Amino acid sequence: MRQDSFILKGNICYSKTIGHLSTTDHGYLICHNGISRGVYPVLPEKYQNLPIIDYHDMLIIPGMTDLHIHAPQYPFRGLGMDLELLDWLNTHTFPEESRYTDLEYAIKAYKLFTDNLKKSASTRAVVFGTIHTPATSFLMEQLNTTGLKTYVGKVNMDVNCPDNLREKDAQTALDNTDEWLQKNIGKYQNTSPIITPRFAPVCSESLLEGLGKLLKKYQLPVQSHLSENLSEIEWVKKLFPWSSCYGDVYDHYELFGTVSKTVMAHCVYSTDEETELLKENGVYIAHCPQSNINLSSGIAPIRSYLDAGIPVGLGTDMAGGANLSMFRCMADAVGVSKLYWRLVDQEKKPLTIEEVFYLATKGGGSFFGNTGSFEDGYEMDALILDDSGICSTRTLTTKERLERYIYLADEGGKLAGKYTAGTEILLSE
Amino acid sequence: MRQDSFILKGNICYSKTIGHLSTTDHGYLICHNGISRGVYPVLPEKYQNLPIIDYHDMLIIPGMTDLHIHAPQYPFRGLGMDLELLDWLNTHTFPEESRYTDLEYAIKAYKLFTDNLKKSASTRAVVFGTIHTPATSFLMEQLNTTGLKTYVGKVNMDVNCPDNLREKDAQTALDNTDEWLQKNIGKYQNTSPIITPRFAPVCSESLLEGLGKLLKKYQLPVQSHLSENLSEIEWVKKLFPWSSCYGDVYDHYELFGTVSKTVMAHCVYSTDEETELLKENGVYIAHCPQSNINLSSGIAPIRSYLDAGIPVGLGTDMAGGANLSMFRCMADAVGVSKLYWRLVDQEKKPLTIEEVFYLATKGGGSFFGNTGSFEDGYEMDALILDDSGICSTRTLTTKERLERYIYLADEGGKLAGKYTAGTEILLSE
Repeated sequence: MRQDSFILKGNICYSKTIGHLSTTDHGYLICHNGISRGVYPVLPEKYQNLPIIDYHDMLIIPGMTDLHIHAPQYPFRGLGMDLELLDWLNTHTFPEESRYTDLEYAIKAYKLFTDNLKKSASTRAVVFGTIHTPATSFLMEQLNTTGLKTYVGKVNMDVNCPDNLREKDAQTALDNTDEWLQKNIGKYQNTSPIITPRFAPVCSESLLEGLGKLLKKYQLPVQSHLSENLSEIEWVKKLFPWSSCYGDVYDHYELFGTVSKTVMAHCVYSTDEETELLKENGVYIAHCPQSNINLSSGIAPIRSYLDAGIPVGLGTDMAGGANLSMFRCMADAVGVSKLYWRLVDQEKKPLTIEEVFYLATKGGGSFFGNTGSFEDGYEMDALILDDSGICSTRTLTTKERLERYIYLADEGGKLAGKYTAGTEILLSE
Repeated sequence: MRQDSFILKGNICYSKTIGHLSTTDHGYLICHNGISRGVYPVLPEKYQNLPIIDYHDMLIIPGMTDLHIHAPQYPFRGLGMDLELLDWLNTHTFPEESRYTDLEYAIKAYKLFTDNLKKSASTRAVVFGTIHTPATSFLMEQLNTTGLKTYVGKVNMDVNCPDNLREKDAQTALDNTDEWLQKNIGKYQNTSPIITPRFAPVCSESLLEGLGKLLKKYQLPVQSHLSENLSEIEWVKKLFPWSSCYGDVYDHYELFGTVSKTVMAHCVYSTDEETELLKENGVYIAHCPQSNINLSSGIAPIRSYLDAGIPVGLGTDMAGGANLSMFRCMADAVGVSKLYWRLVDQEKKPLTIEEVFYLATKGGGSFFGNTGSFEDGYEMDALILDDSGICSTRTLTTKERLERYIYLADEGGKLAGKYTAGTEILLSE
C-alpha cells in the first residue's frame, strides 16, 4: 500500500453538480493511491485497514483551482489599482514584468509567490509567467516542489508593448518557446507547460500562427485573456479588422479550444457570437471578479455563460486581484453577480454559494481532469478548514459553516490541512 | 502629567482634507492628555520630556469609525445572504434579534461582539442594539469597558414587524426608551445613547413623533436607515403617502439633522430632493458598500454626495456586511465606486484610496467631534499597523504601504497597537 492511501474523517462537503452541495457529517473520505473512492457516513468494511486521519469537527472540502493567476505580478499586489486595464499594464505591470529578465530577481520573487500559493487554499493553478525563458523555467521548477498541480506559461508578446518586454520578432519568440517546451514537457511530476499568447493585441499574426502550430505539435493546453475591457476590445477590432469578434482572432489560429483544452480569462463583454464560439469550442472561462472590479472592467455575465453550458472556473488574477484567497474569490463572485442582477439585467439571477463553490472546486478543477470533487475516481485534492476561530452563539449546520467560512476565511478561519492528489502539502514549511 | 501623554514614533499617515494624504516617515506624533498636538518630522524641544513609544518601521494611522453596525447581528455574520433586505430581515435578522429578550443570551452574544470589535481596526462605532432595554443596557456597559468610544441605540419599532420583536405600542416604546435614556445618559465615560428608530416602515407616526420629542428633551444624536432598497422605498411611500421623499418622513418629526447630529445608513437611492435635504440638514451618510452588495441593494452614489458637500463616513453594517474590518470596508468602497462609474454613470469618478481613507478616519470620525485625524487638537485615536507579514520584493513608499495594507490587511497585515483618545486598547486581552 502506498503512503497516499488513507482516510480523512470530518464534516465533508463537495459538489457533484453545480446546483447541489453534498454534506456528510463525521464522514469518511477514502483516498486510495491518491484517488478518491468516495465519501461514506459509515466506514465500509473493505477500507477498514486504511489509516484514519481524524479531523474531528473540522470541515473537509475539495481543493480549489485558481484558473487564472500571474506569478510575476505578486510583488505589487494591492498596489496601483487606480487605472483601467491598458494604462495599468503600461504603468505597473509591464515595468514589473521586465525585471524578470534578471534571473536573480526572478528567483527571489518567484520563491515568495510559490511559498504563498502553497499556503493558500488553491491546490491547482493555471499560471502566467513572463516572456523570459530562464525565469519561467525556474518558476516551473519551484512550483513543482510545492506539490501543487500547476500549468505554467511562458508568455508570448512581440508587438505593441514596451521594448524591454517585447520578444524580438515572431520567429525568435517561437524558437525560444519551442526550446522552452522541449526542455520542460514531461520534466516534472506536478507542473506542465501551457501555450500562452499574452492577449491578442500584443501578438503579431505570425506569432499567433506559430503558436497554433506549436500547440498542434505538442498537443498542449492554451491560456489567454478575452474581452476584459472595452478599450481592449476596440483595439483588437482595429488590429484584426477581419475578425468577427475578439475570440475569433484566437479561433482563426486554432488557439481556441478546437485543438486542445483552452482557458480564457475574464469574458466581461463577450458578444452573443463570441459566447456561441466559446460554447461550441468548449473553451473554459476563468471568471476573475475582483480583478474586474479593481481595474474598473465591469461584471462578467456568468449566469449567461452557465446557462449556455460553457465551462467556468474562478481565478484570482493576481495582481489585477489583490487577494490570493479562493474563498474571497467565491464571495466576490457572488457579490458581483448580485450587482449585475440589480444594475444590469434582472433576468440573470445572482450566483448562489453552492454555485460558486462548484465553480471554485469541480468547475475549475475539471480543467485538470477529474479533480475538485470527492466522487469515486477523482484525484484526491482536499482542504481541511478549522473554523473554531469564527466565534458564534449559534449551532450551525455543515452547509452554514461552509457558507460562513467562504465569507470569513480571513476573519478567524484557518487552513488546517491541504492535500493534492493524495499528497499532503505541508503548510508550515 | 497624565498617563495619556506620550509620543508615538513611526511612519505616520493621516488626512486633513479629503483628497490629500499626509505622510511623515519616522515621524513623531504627540499625544498630550489624550489630545493630538500634531505630527513632526523632528521632535520639538518642548515635548522632549514625554515618553516615546517607538514603533520603528510600522505605520501609524488615525483610528477608524464604523458609522453603522448592528451588534445583535454579529452571531449570524456571513450567513443567509441570498435574500434582499425585507426578506432577509424577516428570515434571518428579526428571529435572531428576538432572542435578545433573554438577557442571558444577550450577555453571551454581546460579549462576543464587543471582544471582536475591540480587536478590530475601529476605535469608534455607532451601534444598533435591539428593542430590549436590559440587553441594550448591558451592551453599553460592555462596550464602555473596551475603551472604544461608541454610541449605542435601543431600537424602536412598533408596527409592521413580527410580534416577538414589536414594542407593544408607541407609548410603551417611548416610556421604555425614556427610562433607558434616564438610566444611561452620562453614565459611562466611553459610551452614550443615541435615538434609534429602526427605519421608518416599522415605526408608527406616534412613535416617530414621540422620538422627536425625546430627542429635543435630551439633545441626543439620531441614527436610522434611509433609501437602502427599492421595495423599502415603495413601502415607505405607501405608509407615509404625505411624504415627499423617504427622508422627509424623518424630517417631518425633526429626526433628520435639524435638532441634533444625525446619521443615516445607506442612501443607495436618494432622490435629488432627498439629497438636497441631507445636505441642508447636514445629515451624515453611513456608506456600507459590502452590505449593499450582499443584500443586492445596489451601489450608493457617494461621489454625488461628496460633490454636494454631504458628510460621509463608512460602515460595516454587520451583518448585512459580513466583515468587521474597516480596511475591507475601504477597499469595498473603492470597488463599488468603480463599478458605479462603469455600469451606472461615467460622470462619477471612482473613489480613490486617499478619499476612502479620509472617509474611514476623519469623515466618519467627525460624527464624534474632532477625531479621525492627527491634526493639532484632535482626540488621539491611533492604529499601529505591522505590514511586515505582507511580503514583497519591492521597496515601497509609506503611501504605497498604506494602500497595500487596505487591500491586504487580512492577508498578512497585523494590528499591532490601538489607542482611543490617548488610551491604549489592549488587543491581547
